[in-house]
Amino acid sequence: MSQSNEHMFFGVHVIGELYGVDAKMLNNKELLESVLKEGIKLSGATLCSLQTKVFDPSGITSLALLSESHASFHTYPDYNALFFDAFTCGTDCQPQKIADHMIEILKPKRHTLKTIKRGEEPEAAKVIKLNKKEDELKKIS
Amino acid sequence: MSQSNEHMFFGVHVIGELYGVDAKMLNNKELLESVLKEGIKLSGATLCSLQTKVFDPSGITSLALLSESHASFHTYPDYNALFFDAFTCGTDCQPQKIADHMIEILKPKRHTLKTIKRGEEPEAAKVIKLNKKEDELKKIS
Repeated sequence: MSQSNEHMFFGVHVIGELYGVDAKMLNNKELLESVLKEGIKLSGATLCSLQTKVFDPSGITSLALLSESHASFHTYPDYNALFFDAFTCGTDCQPQKIADHMIEILKPKRHTLKTIKRGEEPEAAKVIKLNKKEDELKKIS
Repeated sequence: MSQSNEHMFFGVHVIGELYGVDAKMLNNKELLESVLKEGIKLSGATLCSLQTKVFDPSGITSLALLSESHASFHTYPDYNALFFDAFTCGTDCQPQKIADHMIEILKPKRHTLKTIKRGEEPEAAKVIKLNKKEDELKKIS
């Protein structure tokens, strides 16, 4: 990870469900992967690798490993629905934008989204790191 | 996905943070992968594939693609901490057990855990599916 502020023990996790999505879209691996990848770009995150599984008889899961954590979807064509989550560490990225992009392209009839702040708030995280560095300096001196 | 009850649009997402973990453990890819895999077994979930990235200068991310959704961790050795999440669809698995196993092996000084029910509650999900089947039968008849 870079030395920018994604390297702090703080992150934002957006989780949600999309309902009333066209079942054909929810079985379209290429479309879904491309929507996820484009959403990741828009969020400012960096995609390291992507694993996707097409389930029998239906349903697709994709997990994107990001420099800043992860993003995923799990589709349920029988229910015209999908589960989504995006978690990015630091304050540089906007995981909400991945959700926004999926909603724009997949056009669910309704959706739910929750945003959860995780870890130490940025200011607290800085203090912990500074204290740790001071402790290390004390040990060395 | 199988025809058992993991195939309903309902799931349980456990998210949490472990603090005060030995930094060597948080840089040990083999140990962390094995703890995650064992936790997945204990939860009753099925591992399909695992992607792991070791970051420079430190930190490891693993994403497990499950038949029932996903599990992940993101380690921050500089902060002696890690982010964890496990999401399993249906009611057959216990994602909490993945967290319990990580806590047992990694022995954090403290941790936080949140359990979030997602999608439609099982009874509501059944009704939606039955209604949909009835609609389909009406279309056919």
